[in-house]
Amino acid sequence: MEIVSTNKAHGGLQGVYRHASAETSTDMTFSVFVPEHEPGEKLPVVWWLSGLTCTHANVTEKGEYRAACAQHRLIFVAPDTSPRGESVPDDPEAYDFGQGAGFYVDATQDPWAANYRMWSYVTRELPELLFAHFPADPTRQGIMGHSMGGHGALTVGLRHPDRFKSVSAFAPIVAPSQVPWGQKALGNYLGPDPAAWRAHDAVALIEDGARLPELLVDQGDKDVFLEKELRPELLEKACAAAGIPLALTLRPGYDHSYYFVTTFMADHLAWHAERLR
Amino acid sequence: MEIVSTNKAHGGLQGVYRHASAETSTDMTFSVFVPEHEPGEKLPVVWWLSGLTCTHANVTEKGEYRAACAQHRLIFVAPDTSPRGESVPDDPEAYDFGQGAGFYVDATQDPWAANYRMWSYVTRELPELLFAHFPADPTRQGIMGHSMGGHGALTVGLRHPDRFKSVSAFAPIVAPSQVPWGQKALGNYLGPDPAAWRAHDAVALIEDGARLPELLVDQGDKDVFLEKELRPELLEKACAAAGIPLALTLRPGYDHSYYFVTTFMADHLAWHAERLR
Repeated sequence: MEIVSTNKAHGGLQGVYRHASAETSTDMTFSVFVPEHEPGEKLPVVWWLSGLTCTHANVTEKGEYRAACAQHRLIFVAPDTSPRGESVPDDPEAYDFGQGAGFYVDATQDPWAANYRMWSYVTRELPELLFAHFPADPTRQGIMGHSMGGHGALTVGLRHPDRFKSVSAFAPIVAPSQVPWGQKALGNYLGPDPAAWRAHDAVALIEDGARLPELLVDQGDKDVFLEKELRPELLEKACAAAGIPLALTLRPGYDHSYYFVTTFMADHLAWHAERLR
Repeated sequence: MEIVSTNKAHGGLQGVYRHASAETSTDMTFSVFVPEHEPGEKLPVVWWLSGLTCTHANVTEKGEYRAACAQHRLIFVAPDTSPRGESVPDDPEAYDFGQGAGFYVDATQDPWAANYRMWSYVTRELPELLFAHFPADPTRQGIMGHSMGGHGALTVGLRHPDRFKSVSAFAPIVAPSQVPWGQKALGNYLGPDPAAWRAHDAVALIEDGARLPELLVDQGDKDVFLEKELRPELLEKACAAAGIPLALTLRPGYDHSYYFVTTFMADHLAWHAERLR
């Protein structure tokens, strides 16, 4: 693991790191904020999964999470959203597929299957690296994300109820099987049979029996993707049918940007911190 | 004045605007955050002057000021750091001179004099536009900045003690006449005679009689520019000799980046807010 940069911030250390990933067969870059702590102390960790077009850098620079993470003493980890590089297949015309748009799945279809293994990367390879190199407590993990990363947080959380004590999302894609972004990405990465998509669709996972003790979701009501791509009412219906308490708030006037995310970032981190104590 | 973008954030509105500047003879872009307020209410305003290479966008995206501005109900204004465009003279090899490096002076030397009029822009033209279009109270203004923008905040503040009730800076260039960045920029913009530079040098202004009731400055002790370009000890000495109370804190481990700035941004804004009540 190579250190790309470290900067002291809010009493802790904001680092950016690079490593050769066996899953993606590429170098992968990620960021970790570690608040001030005692030598030998292990801290709870919150995973952040980013949205379409993002690298680790977007939330690291614009996410406004460090003050709250320092206050609550949370480690904050932000992976990239896909493998990258000239050798990695891409759809350079599309912002919603290929590089920057891994959708947190292990692709089964060529030419994507060789590199697009973001599910295994964020659920297995990067956690191993994190717990080997950082003072993070594996028994106290939360996960959150934005948009495509909200989809990632919900699906990773629903499939690992014993690992994550807290799961939240900003403007998540809740039912990729039912919306254009998801149909395109899952169809290309996983093949045309929608049955193969259900393990990567939060609403389908809940319909198929996945359970969590609770979920926190915030959504702007001026989000241009709300009706066509995000459709939080589908999550609301699935949670109601499954008896999962969902705290979903529609925020008047907010859009899909980091201006929305940062407004409620501190609230989400306080919510995670309570559950990770 | 043209609206480039507006986004709801922290209950208020983060806007980016463009206008044709008479001072710089170019279009100029700036950002304004206006917190939630009552119709007809005027709010105090804090000016932010940015450092070398920055546009309005750096602090707008990475500055983490909106939560504190919403809490204290402060308008936050961030101008660009120079005129820009293909018609504007530049030194494309240099990051510390030309476009992105206006040093908040009105250039007197060719070819810079026609466009590089950032002093008049930030002290006269942009304030007129701001008070005409935004709910800002001209009797309650503060000013702050970072690095070259800290130089700008100190010099603009020292020369307008009746206008600004609060002046603070992060890692400012305090004595441009005595350091390489400043000697290059002031020499090129204002000509070789250092006597012409004194009106744009905070330490020289204080030596020449400028006074403020107090100053707040934070500086990282791991800042690579500390000893050669920033030299806060020169400001300390000048303030001591002039009887200006200077709250200068050297912050252990912090560098010159926005990771440093954002760590202390909320403290600075709280300090301004107290003085602008």
